[in-house]
Amino acid sequence: MTKGALALLVHGGTENWSPRRWKDRFDDVCAGRPVLLLPNTSFDPADVHYAAVWKPQPGELAAFPNLRVIFNLGAGVDALMADSSLPDVPLVRVAVTDLTARMTEYVVLHVLMHHRQELYLRESQREKRWAPKSQWAAGAVTVGIMGLGTLGADAAGVLKRLGFRVAGWSRSPKVIDGVDCFHGEAQIDAFLRRTDILVCLLPLTPETRHILNRDAFRKLNRTSPLGAPVLINAGRGGLQNEDDILQCLDDGTLGGASLDVYATEPLPADSRFWTHPKVVLTPHNAADTDPDEISKYVAEQIARFEAGGALENVVDRGRGY
Amino acid sequence: MTKGALALLVHGGTENWSPRRWKDRFDDVCAGRPVLLLPNTSFDPADVHYAAVWKPQPGELAAFPNLRVIFNLGAGVDALMADSSLPDVPLVRVAVTDLTARMTEYVVLHVLMHHRQELYLRESQREKRWAPKSQWAAGAVTVGIMGLGTLGADAAGVLKRLGFRVAGWSRSPKVIDGVDCFHGEAQIDAFLRRTDILVCLLPLTPETRHILNRDAFRKLNRTSPLGAPVLINAGRGGLQNEDDILQCLDDGTLGGASLDVYATEPLPADSRFWTHPKVVLTPHNAADTDPDEISKYVAEQIARFEAGGALENVVDRGRGY
Ligand SMILES: NC(=O)c1ccc[n+]([C@@H]2O[C@H](COP(=O)([O-])OP(=O)(O)OC[C@H]3O[C@@H](n4cnc5c(N)ncnc54)[C@H](OP(=O)(O)O)[C@@H]3O)[C@@H](O)[C@H]2O)c1
Ligand SMILES: NC(=O)c1ccc[n+]([C@@H]2O[C@H](COP(=O)([O-])OP(=O)(O)OC[C@H]3O[C@@H](n4cnc5c(N)ncnc54)[C@H](OP(=O)(O)O)[C@@H]3O)[C@@H](O)[C@H]2O)c1
Repeated sequence: MTKGALALLVHGGTENWSPRRWKDRFDDVCAGRPVLLLPNTSFDPADVHYAAVWKPQPGELAAFPNLRVIFNLGAGVDALMADSSLPDVPLVRVAVTDLTARMTEYVVLHVLMHHRQELYLRESQREKRWAPKSQWAAGAVTVGIMGLGTLGADAAGVLKRLGFRVAGWSRSPKVIDGVDCFHGEAQIDAFLRRTDILVCLLPLTPETRHILNRDAFRKLNRTSPLGAPVLINAGRGGLQNEDDILQCLDDGTLGGASLDVYATEPLPADSRFWTHPKVVLTPHNAADTDPDEISKYVAEQIARFEAGGALENVVDRGRGY
Repeated sequence: MTKGALALLVHGGTENWSPRRWKDRFDDVCAGRPVLLLPNTSFDPADVHYAAVWKPQPGELAAFPNLRVIFNLGAGVDALMADSSLPDVPLVRVAVTDLTARMTEYVVLHVLMHHRQELYLRESQREKRWAPKSQWAAGAVTVGIMGLGTLGADAAGVLKRLGFRVAGWSRSPKVIDGVDCFHGEAQIDAFLRRTDILVCLLPLTPETRHILNRDAFRKLNRTSPLGAPVLINAGRGGLQNEDDILQCLDDGTLGGASLDVYATEPLPADSRFWTHPKVVLTPHNAADTDPDEISKYVAEQIARFEAGGALENVVDRGRGY
């Protein structure tokens, strides 16, 4: 082999995620480089220099002694970080405009659904009731975004354009035009207190696990024009305490929730989320990764890396994202 | 009376439309000018110089011999234009950023609902099925906006920002950055053929009545990535042939419809729209007018008019909008 091989380990996902589709796309963009779709026993693991992966089994990546870079085929690396045998090479995550745009669609859709009383309006339609309620202007409502990274910052821009007040919370301080930025433990309460619609776009790390819990929900704006504040989580299921969400929906601490991610996926059939009248549930499809876009992104990074350039969007293993 | 009185004739609408609320707001902003909430018999109709109206009875406005300007408390003047005894004075319609922003919220919400397969996802939730389908990027979908006026042009801007391809159709030629603009009868077919999601923000006039009919729906993009094209009408009910919409939904010519307006409002209980699984129905509340904003808008126009300035957003009676 002239060029080090790229091994593809892709598991799970939607139709889009067909391993064959990924292999075809990578073959197209990796001119001359062998692309190995695993499992595949007809090659020497020592020839593999790159791995592009989604939800590999723990230990699977340790089989490649000459691995140089791991590309995660999604934005969140929490599943990989849980693998104690993960090779100590740069780990690159996805940050491409295609994925970001899809997440912004999801966030804008679900913010507007709650802001525009969709749960109430669908109920009225089912009951054949013509009963418009007054509607707040967006400028009376604050959307608070947890996580002001690639995804959070983009969603903030469109929400501003729609007229919402936007606040954000991150680990390090930020300055974003028109967004009230908060950071760190010390400022989280001030951030939550002004928030009517809480949007979570955090990565899952030891610091953020179960950050969406009853204590946090209780701190949200108790005089919200929406009646009660709303939760939208498209980060990871591990960010949320699911019993707390259900209890807070039941006792009115939360007025509604849009959830794309869950502690266990697929969501078990006995979860109360399926049938809860205040839950708008999607099957972890807020932002699919598109093989066309991502394969190009990976191929470009490999080319730059082999020409001596720097990799982009390398995960900081100490922080966990 | 020192200043000519302003007569308020407001009928119908949501809670927001309480006549008392309108009177309070107008009293606040019309310093020193008598504001008469009709019906009110304790005044001389000859003292009335201005009328601010929503759905007055035909003939009601003809009772004021010294009327100078009629302000319609909404964007659409079709109801007024149907009054053959309407005094021949300038007729001003509402065009304020508050109303425009609300309509853009509605349009963006409903475009995203159809684009993001909300009908399918809610059905999956009801059936407890975890079954994500592939999702098209916004760039693969064309939203075609009929009416590129105050409302259409603003919605186009946000849809562009979300990554959609946007086309528009108006009476006179337009140039809008990033929007494929079509105009007039001669170009409507080209406009419809490329459209996956048809958004109607036209005024109701003799030319536009029943423009949303089977012939038009058949011309929409027959190879739409969405499966079948979608209709969103937030203009007026008179723009749509309701039997055609139902038949086209049933035979697959249309994949879904969001309707805010109807031939008869409130929508009669026996309309099939209420229960049709492909219809997302709202009770003519896409863009409420906010008394705070509109009363200021009217007071400012009166002040400018009395100082010899020009009125804004005067309806062209020949065109009917
Ligand atoms: N549902 C889906 O389909 C889907 C799709 C894609 C991504 N996701 C999820 O979205 C997450 C975010 O993606 P991204 O590309 O925006 O990531 P990113 O660019 O790394 O941004 C992460 C943001 O979270 C903040 N953050 C991290 N730890 C924090 C802490 N302990 N306290 C406060 N703020 C903290 C970061 O703060 P700093 O800016 O200070 O570093 C940053 O602003 C991913 O990790 C993934 O889990 C979900
Ligand atoms: N559902 C609700 O809550 C709600 C709320 C507010 C308004 N509306 C409706 O929305 C309508 C539009 O409001 P707007 O403020 O955007 O009005 P506008 O500024 O007057 O714009 C009207 C647009 O329609 C176009 N048009 C009119 N007749 C046409 C024809 N025969 N063929 C092609 N194009 C034609 C005009 O073309 P030109 O640019 O060439 O003149 C213009 O682009 C209102 O009339 C009202 O019915 C509904």
